[in-house]
This record gives sequence, structure tokens and C-alpha cells, in this order.
Amino acid sequence: MAAEEERAPDALAGSPLASGLQVLELAGGLDLVSGRRLEHVQIAYETFGELDPQGANAILICHALSGDAHVATGPDRFGETVQGWWEPVVGPGKAIDTEKYFVICSNVPGGCSGTTGPGSADPATNMPYGLRFPLVTIEDMVDAQAALIDHLGISRLACVTGGSMGGMQALAWVRRYPERVASVAAIATTWRLAAQSIAFNEVGRTAILGDPAFLGGDYYEQGQPSHGLAVARMIGHITYLSDDSMREKFGRRLCEREEHAFEFVTEFEVESYLAYQGRKFVERFDANTYLYMTKAMDYFDLSAGHATLAGALADVRSRFLVLSFSSDWLFPTYQARELVDALKATDAEVSFAEIESPYGHDAFLLEPEQQRQYLEPFLARIVAEERECATAGPSAPTAGGDAR
Amino acid sequence: MAAEEERAPDALAGSPLASGLQVLELAGGLDLVSGRRLEHVQIAYETFGELDPQGANAILICHALSGDAHVATGPDRFGETVQGWWEPVVGPGKAIDTEKYFVICSNVPGGCSGTTGPGSADPATNMPYGLRFPLVTIEDMVDAQAALIDHLGISRLACVTGGSMGGMQALAWVRRYPERVASVAAIATTWRLAAQSIAFNEVGRTAILGDPAFLGGDYYEQGQPSHGLAVARMIGHITYLSDDSMREKFGRRLCEREEHAFEFVTEFEVESYLAYQGRKFVERFDANTYLYMTKAMDYFDLSAGHATLAGALADVRSRFLVLSFSSDWLFPTYQARELVDALKATDAEVSFAEIESPYGHDAFLLEPEQQRQYLEPFLARIVAEERECATAGPSAPTAGGDAR
Repeated sequence: MAAEEERAPDALAGSPLASGLQVLELAGGLDLVSGRRLEHVQIAYETFGELDPQGANAILICHALSGDAHVATGPDRFGETVQGWWEPVVGPGKAIDTEKYFVICSNVPGGCSGTTGPGSADPATNMPYGLRFPLVTIEDMVDAQAALIDHLGISRLACVTGGSMGGMQALAWVRRYPERVASVAAIATTWRLAAQSIAFNEVGRTAILGDPAFLGGDYYEQGQPSHGLAVARMIGHITYLSDDSMREKFGRRLCEREEHAFEFVTEFEVESYLAYQGRKFVERFDANTYLYMTKAMDYFDLSAGHATLAGALADVRSRFLVLSFSSDWLFPTYQARELVDALKATDAEVSFAEIESPYGHDAFLLEPEQQRQYLEPFLARIVAEERECATAGPSAPTAGGDAR
Repeated sequence: MAAEEERAPDALAGSPLASGLQVLELAGGLDLVSGRRLEHVQIAYETFGELDPQGANAILICHALSGDAHVATGPDRFGETVQGWWEPVVGPGKAIDTEKYFVICSNVPGGCSGTTGPGSADPATNMPYGLRFPLVTIEDMVDAQAALIDHLGISRLACVTGGSMGGMQALAWVRRYPERVASVAAIATTWRLAAQSIAFNEVGRTAILGDPAFLGGDYYEQGQPSHGLAVARMIGHITYLSDDSMREKFGRRLCEREEHAFEFVTEFEVESYLAYQGRKFVERFDANTYLYMTKAMDYFDLSAGHATLAGALADVRSRFLVLSFSSDWLFPTYQARELVDALKATDAEVSFAEIESPYGHDAFLLEPEQQRQYLEPFLARIVAEERECATAGPSAPTAGGDAR
């Protein structure tokens, strides 16, 4: 998979270290885990900071279900300077310091923010793929990222990190490209979904697929199946918060009224909040992409092909930082512990912390300082070691595990 | 509110102690908390067992969101002998022993199983009410039950019990008719919903209200908004189970396949289970009733009109058994404890147990033996005391609290 062409965005603004949206065309296409193949793939990505001369400070950030390449402040895909989806964590002087590291973030295949997905035109018909777009897996997302770092001339990543579905990609890297990833910071994530999470995803998909406006996925001319997508997002939003944070944030407060309406109208603040989240999401996100992303998450199983997770991780040489959040009930701490236990069983170097937070799954977006205390020293140490190994010569990185 | 007419069901079968479906017409109508009034109300109910000569062994069971009057084995509303919704708990020799107690269960107003609700014909138009049916509250349900026990000649209930929304009704009784209820057994319930539960209800309502087949609630000729109602039920079902029980029951097992389909089809067993639950529900339940029941739950607040729950319960003289289940995350134990603490602050007699169970909220339907060890002695004691008081004379019940 070689890069064919690189297109600059129309406008660049903000930090000179933020690339703005770049688009890489994968001339070689992308062979998918399903056995299908995407002939024409473009990958939307952004970079922040500068690659050091040894190429030892590259950090790949993987986005979650509804994320995109715009992880931090810089020109967005319309050329305007806006904050990124992981703004509190990524940027100059932040936990993932773009003055120290070369940060890469790309939109995943199947996405709707610049990378080829179900809303892209199928070259065979010049019409949007819709459901004719092949299902993508977390591993396919990682393969696209590997092609991207090839293009950027990066042989080895100091760290792959991400929260939620982003954390799954980070974990998939160590099985897919074990030699190319020095470390993984897996945050608010899991090594495979439990039945409850698959169930929530399935209800969201059912809401979308059953919306009459869905039209079998070919709704691009007529407009989104807004109702189904909004319902799916509302369900998702409940799972991203916690009972505690919702009580704190909304309680039983009514919006702009003192007494119940005794009608089927929006009355409680929490209802108004959810409805707003649903509406906002429909404006920016593609319903088909929602289907593809949730399916990719459902399929993901880091232990696939092995009897145990530890067995699947036997050859892993990367170092790990695993962070969970106390009130995250979508990907609860016990799932992070299962991963940590399996890694320990393989003698991998792994640090684990459960961060106390009331914010549920969303805590990975809302607790920068607590994440910083683990991320910052972890990244500093890894990059220092990578530089040392790079200086010592090309064979050092793989042997480095013993030297440390 | 006086009884006007009582209609016998077409057929009676099963235990001679099971009444089969009875229908009480409330000649006086029903004044609702909203200020609105239902002129014509019929209440569908069933009874099991026999009222003792002192009228001291009457137990009212209140049903949950999707329940009905058919709580235990006996002829159902079609005259066939079928099991009831609380079968493992109610019946001869069971925790709520119909050989010892006179058990009453009625369908709530707003329901769709015989009691007047949104699917009933509005006498003014002879068309189904639809959303013109007034919103009912938990307190309105209790008022209808009070009219029913008037009709049955019962002045005082030995116990009012129920799980989930049934438990809310049981609790509402002690504020609405404090002198008429000797005890309450509140199971897997809460004194008011937290924001998270309101949020889940609202997503379900949104799914129904936005289904194009909903037709503003006037869908009775064209057929149910099946898709919206099924989605609502699927969401509900996830909240009735627990992460643990879903992992145990389904894990990540696929249905009748070894490998992923890489298509948007039902693949995981948990998806198949949820889809089945959705379909089954649509066959037996009315979408409008779903809206009315969830709204009644959202509105319920046992502390309403008072600064604190303890303040609202200051004059309560009933005795309480409160049961929660360890894995119930819909109405978690902390909410039961809030109720218990408030009751203790008023010097009410209250027993509380958190039952260890993996079954989540559904545990109140699935853990008969664990409930029996608390319910059986509680009911035996209450009824014995009620009989003693009844023998001692009409003033005894209210003074009884001091004698014990």
C-alpha cells in the first residue's frame, strides 16, 4: 500500500505545528479481514508537532466511535481553527505534548469525516456505497493507520493510544504490528465487548435500520434517518455518563417549569439534554457510519484465534499503560483488569490505574489532569528509551525489552 | 366512587380460589391528580384465595410496567388457565400463599389489559382515546385500587406489595391511605426515579413517538408502531438484566454460526434474544400504554410536597419490608437504603434486605426462594396482628402500633 497523492487542505490556520486536514490516497487499496477489498481508499489525517530526527517521538492517537482526525486545536477540515475532540489532553504543554511529540490522528475507514466510508462514492457506480460498503474491523482500521505511518516515513510508533474504540485500535496494534509499536496507552477501553455493550449497540442499530427514512442505507439524496440515529445516540449517551453524574448534573429538575405538564412533552432537564444530543449528532454524523463503527466494536476480540487472552498476547513486546475510570460502566474496570492480568501472565510490562471519577465512560474526555499524571511520565520514559535505542542502532528496538 | 356493575368472565377454570378476570365499573369515575377526570372507568382485577371472616388477610399486589391482573395461576382474561406474572411467588404454598391470604391484583388505569386506558373507547366519541387519555400518576393507580377494595368490602389491607412500578404503588398507598394499609412490602423499587432511569424511559418514548406508524397515538385501526415499541422494549430489557447475567446467559456466543457474517444481520445470541423480546412485546402490549406507564414512573416522587422524604413519611404508621437486589442497577440498593433511612428517621418499623442475585432488576421475578424467606414471616406476622386487632375491636388497628 503506497501513497499516491497528497492533497493539502484549502486553508491552513492556527498553530504552525498543526497540519490541518491531509488526505492520503492509498494506491494499493486495502485488503480487509472479511476477505473483501477496498480498491480506492483515502485516509483523512492530521498531524501536530514535529517528528524528531531519530523518528522516535511519533504518537498515534486513535479516535472513538464518533471522533475524527481533529484531535487538538488546529485548522479543521473546513480550514477553521477549532478545538479538537481530545483538546484537554493533546496540545502544547498538555499530557500528550505536541511541543515534544509528533502526534498523528486519522479518521478510520468506514468513517464519515474524510476517510473512505459508506457515504463515499463507490468508483464503480459513482454513487454512495451505502450498505454495499464492506464491513470494517478494528484490525482494518489499524491496517489503514499502518499505511499512513508508512507514508509518513515512520517505522515505529513510540505509542499508540486512544479511549473507547480508540483504545481497541491501540490494543489491536500490538497483535497486528508487534514490532512497530513501542507502547500502548489503552484508556477507558476493553479487550472485547461484553454482552451488555453488544446489546446497547444492537438497539441503536435496530433504531436506525428500522427507520423508514433509512431506505436500506441509500438515503444520501433524501436525507438522514434522523429519528433512528438520534435514538441510537441518546442510548449511547446514557451509557457514556454515570448514574452519579446524571444525578449530579440533572437530578429530577424540570426545564423552565415548576410543575408537571401532564402531557408528552419534554419536562425533565435530562430529557432536554438527551434530545439536544440526538439532534446535534444527526447534524454531524452519518447513520451508516454509526452502523459500521458499532459492528466493528462488537466484532473486536483481542483474544481471537486463541483459547485465552494471555495466549493471544504471548509474543507481545510493547509496554502498556492501562487506565480505567471508577464510574465507567460501559467498559468497567473489571474488563481492564482482565487485560492487565493477561498481560502480566505474559510478563509484559504493564502499568494500570483505575482513576476515581464520577463522569462514567466520558471521563477519558473530561479528566485531563488525572490522565496526565500517568500519561506524561509514561510517554516521556518511552520516548527517551526509543531515542536511546535508535541511537544504539537498528537492532536495538526489539532487543530493548531485555535491556530495560 | 361506588361499584355499579360486576361482570363475570365468560369461563372459569383452574383453582376454585382463582376468580378469573373480573371487571368493576366505577360509577363515580376517577378524579385524577392532574385535575382531569375520567368519567367512565372499568377496572380489571382478579382475586385468589378467600377473605377471612375478620377481613384481616387481604393482600393487594400491584403490577409493574407491563404486568396485568393475572398475577398467579388461574383462568386468564380469555378463560384459559395460565400461569401468572408472579407465578413463583404467588399461589398455594408459595411466599404469598393463596391458601392463607386473599390476594387481589388489578390492572392499572392507563393499562391495556382490561382496565380503562388509552386504547379504550372514549364514550364521547366511541373511538379509542389515544393521547387524549389523561396522564395517570402512581397515585391515580392507587385511587383506583382503593375503589376496588371498597367494592370488595375490605376496609384495611394487611399488605400492599409489588416490584418495580408495583413497589411504587405500594409506597404511594401509605401516603394516600395511611389508615388502610397495615404494611408494605416494597421490592426492587424506588421512592423516585433518578435521572438515569428517566433518561432510559425518555429514549423509549422517543422511539415510539417518532415512529411514523405512531400517527399521534391514533394507530388503532392501522396497527401498532411496532418498530418504536420494540426498540423501547429492547432498551428496557437491557436495564432489567445485569452485565453479569448477560455475560452468563449470552456471553459473545453467535447464533447458529461459527464465524462473523460481515453483514448487518443478527449474529450474537444477545441480539437474537433482544429482537425476540421486542417482537413478543409488540404482540401483547399497547404502545400508548407504554408511554403512560413510563410517564407515571417518571412523575412518581414519594417525597412530593415535602422538603425531605422523612418529612413526607412523618405520619406513616404502616410497617415496611424493603427488598433490593445486589445486581439491580435500574433501582439500585442505594435508593432502597435512602427509603429505609427516611423510614427509620420517622421511627417506622422497617425491615430491609439486599438479596444477593446476579439477575439484575428482573430478580424480583426470578428469586422466589430468597424473597420467601423475608416475605413469608413478614406476612404471617402482619396478618396475625391484624386478626388480633380486629378481634380487639375497631379502634385497635391504629393503636396497634404502640402495643407491638
